Amino acid sequence: MSSETTVRVATPTADYNAVVGTGLIDTLGDHLREAVPSATAALLVTDANLPDDTKQRARTALTGYRLAEVDLLPTETDKSIATWQRILEACASHRLERTAAVIALGGGIVGDPAGFAAASYRRGINVIQCPTTLLAMVDASVGGKAGVNLKLDTMPPPHLGGTGVPPVSTPSPTVLKNFVGAFHHPKRILADASTLHSLPPREFAAGLAECIKHSMIAGPYDQPDLGPFLDQNLETITTRDENTLAALVAANIRLKATIVATDEHETSTGTAGRALLNLGHTFAHAIETLPGITHNQGAETRHGLLHGEAVALGLVAAATYAVSTNQLAKPDLDQLLTRLARANLPTKAAGLPDPTIILDRMGDDKKAAAGQLRLVVPQANAAATVTRDIDTNAVVTAIEAIRV
Amino acid sequence: MSSETTVRVATPTADYNAVVGTGLIDTLGDHLREAVPSATAALLVTDANLPDDTKQRARTALTGYRLAEVDLLPTETDKSIATWQRILEACASHRLERTAAVIALGGGIVGDPAGFAAASYRRGINVIQCPTTLLAMVDASVGGKAGVNLKLDTMPPPHLGGTGVPPVSTPSPTVLKNFVGAFHHPKRILADASTLHSLPPREFAAGLAECIKHSMIAGPYDQPDLGPFLDQNLETITTRDENTLAALVAANIRLKATIVATDEHETSTGTAGRALLNLGHTFAHAIETLPGITHNQGAETRHGLLHGEAVALGLVAAATYAVSTNQLAKPDLDQLLTRLARANLPTKAAGLPDPTIILDRMGDDKKAAAGQLRLVVPQANAAATVTRDIDTNAVVTAIEAIRV
Repeated sequence: MSSETTVRVATPTADYNAVVGTGLIDTLGDHLREAVPSATAALLVTDANLPDDTKQRARTALTGYRLAEVDLLPTETDKSIATWQRILEACASHRLERTAAVIALGGGIVGDPAGFAAASYRRGINVIQCPTTLLAMVDASVGGKAGVNLKLDTMPPPHLGGTGVPPVSTPSPTVLKNFVGAFHHPKRILADASTLHSLPPREFAAGLAECIKHSMIAGPYDQPDLGPFLDQNLETITTRDENTLAALVAANIRLKATIVATDEHETSTGTAGRALLNLGHTFAHAIETLPGITHNQGAETRHGLLHGEAVALGLVAAATYAVSTNQLAKPDLDQLLTRLARANLPTKAAGLPDPTIILDRMGDDKKAAAGQLRLVVPQANAAATVTRDIDTNAVVTAIEAIRV
Repeated sequence: MSSETTVRVATPTADYNAVVGTGLIDTLGDHLREAVPSATAALLVTDANLPDDTKQRARTALTGYRLAEVDLLPTETDKSIATWQRILEACASHRLERTAAVIALGGGIVGDPAGFAAASYRRGINVIQCPTTLLAMVDASVGGKAGVNLKLDTMPPPHLGGTGVPPVSTPSPTVLKNFVGAFHHPKRILADASTLHSLPPREFAAGLAECIKHSMIAGPYDQPDLGPFLDQNLETITTRDENTLAALVAANIRLKATIVATDEHETSTGTAGRALLNLGHTFAHAIETLPGITHNQGAETRHGLLHGEAVALGLVAAATYAVSTNQLAKPDLDQLLTRLARANLPTKAAGLPDPTIILDRMGDDKKAAAGQLRLVVPQANAAATVTRDIDTNAVVTAIEAIRV
């Protein structure tokens, strides 16, 4: 049995539905028929991490379509031009016409290259995004961004970007994250909360970090209840209650859709738009690839930082910055710390380098225009603002706040 | 000294100028400043066939910009994913920000991969197209199509497309022309007719084939004078009078811009729009990669078919089809034959296979939806129409008409 909620995503160049629910994989064929009536053939791009059962259900649901399949290793290394080319070759070998569809079934590391391949095969064919991780559902699948990493054999110049800055002790080649891609909206997003059962706890928590980030910017977008929803439901969320997860995903997709609609290609230079989605990310990008970081979750010591874990620390740093510059009340910071802890996310980490090194890397962030540091600063009432007028001492205080 | 004509290209998603004239390469920096005010750095992508002097003039004109350069071999084999990746790596190594520009200086085989690299680097940066061949000026640079070929190691299935069908006697791998790409409009087109002096006569004539094609569809687009202009000026055109060339290029860009504006992404399914630009191309795609074709130009025997030469034969075939199905008067066909001959283009070729083989290959054309043959048929008053209602006998007659 399946239940579903539909969120409309309408931008200046696209208009499609994100359908969220449980058991939706079994209805994939119906959704494809509805969203891409022209398609008689499809390429199913799957995630090697997915249970076989999930893939088999997708295949069964697509009975009647001329179907081919590509299975991808969902790692940053495989999010490459070579993987994208493999998908393109599969499209061509499978004789996909312009009317056909690519179906991306997996995490963002599958949806991103599959979306970019759909964007570029014959200058653009249809894609259906079926995200199977919480992060992909609430973040990657919405907004039309698709792409792969670019590997440079030689070390890039320092100001190429936070994510482009090589880890302190790692040799070349350098991987420039998401440096090659396109804006290419799917014809439909199908987010089946049932698929989240197979997600490892650490990955699941990492996805929650983006939900918590959304709860801190949702006020002006008519969703001030995102934070209270988390506070009321974090236990049922972390125990993966399907209906609660579906409600969480739908609310987060709705928020992201609203923001994307106003700033489709991230060209807004004001204090709103897609830039707000970078809350916590300037700090996160500066620390997420650093070696030697550890953090504890209960008795477990976790090594390194998943993107979502770095975002969790980044949110703490951003909120601390806001408090010490009198833009946010201390109880709001405390509320954030509680939310993160209940979501099994770190609020502090060991092994961070000197603040000056982190500050340097923040200035190198890909999204810092011409090397100028830009911060998203949380405000009262689940709002945030973008500023280039930075109090460096407060940044140092913020960095020290996330150090164990 | 430079003189210039500006043609505005306005589509639903873009609005830019094509500037046509003589001596424009020396003003490249001024045009970049005007069209991309944000740029302080640029990547100049050049064509190995260009005279060094032309490249040096471009470099001089770009004084003040942080400049890097990539030189491309302009062959179909090099119009590849590997070449595109090379341009992307140059963008990254040169630390290009989103505000920077790629400048494509060369023929379509340079402009296409450079445009696609600009479309995908950081999900899209600015590109300036400076076409230096007649074909690129009147066709490739206008309309936003950019891309590269896809090479498949195994033979593709037959209906992958006319351009995808391997030459009869050629082994795999198969090259699928323009199978990977994007729609990405330039911020400016700069067509300097002076650069056409260095174009070999055969390449020059091949570009004229697209101008002659334009003259056969321009009536309903308020340019019925395109044909008469050719008839009056073909001698000064073939002797490369710069001002006449500039006028020719401007008129052809104006026509293509008008057509593209009404059908930006080639989604028109009616009898107008970009589909009309395929006049002669269904025949051309079926024969252009065939081995063993020869044709004479004066005392010279030319081997094989450049794309424009195949288009010339395709125009003859399409007009012959139109005459034998009573859609076009015989004098209009004769006028076409005269125009092509005066432009040093073939109207017949030796070595064509049996009509049934050519018919098969026509049905395989990439642009034939679901394998169904589509023909653009010339009509009176420089108009044309698209039809799927094909008279097979008349197609055979048309093929026999281009056989020596």
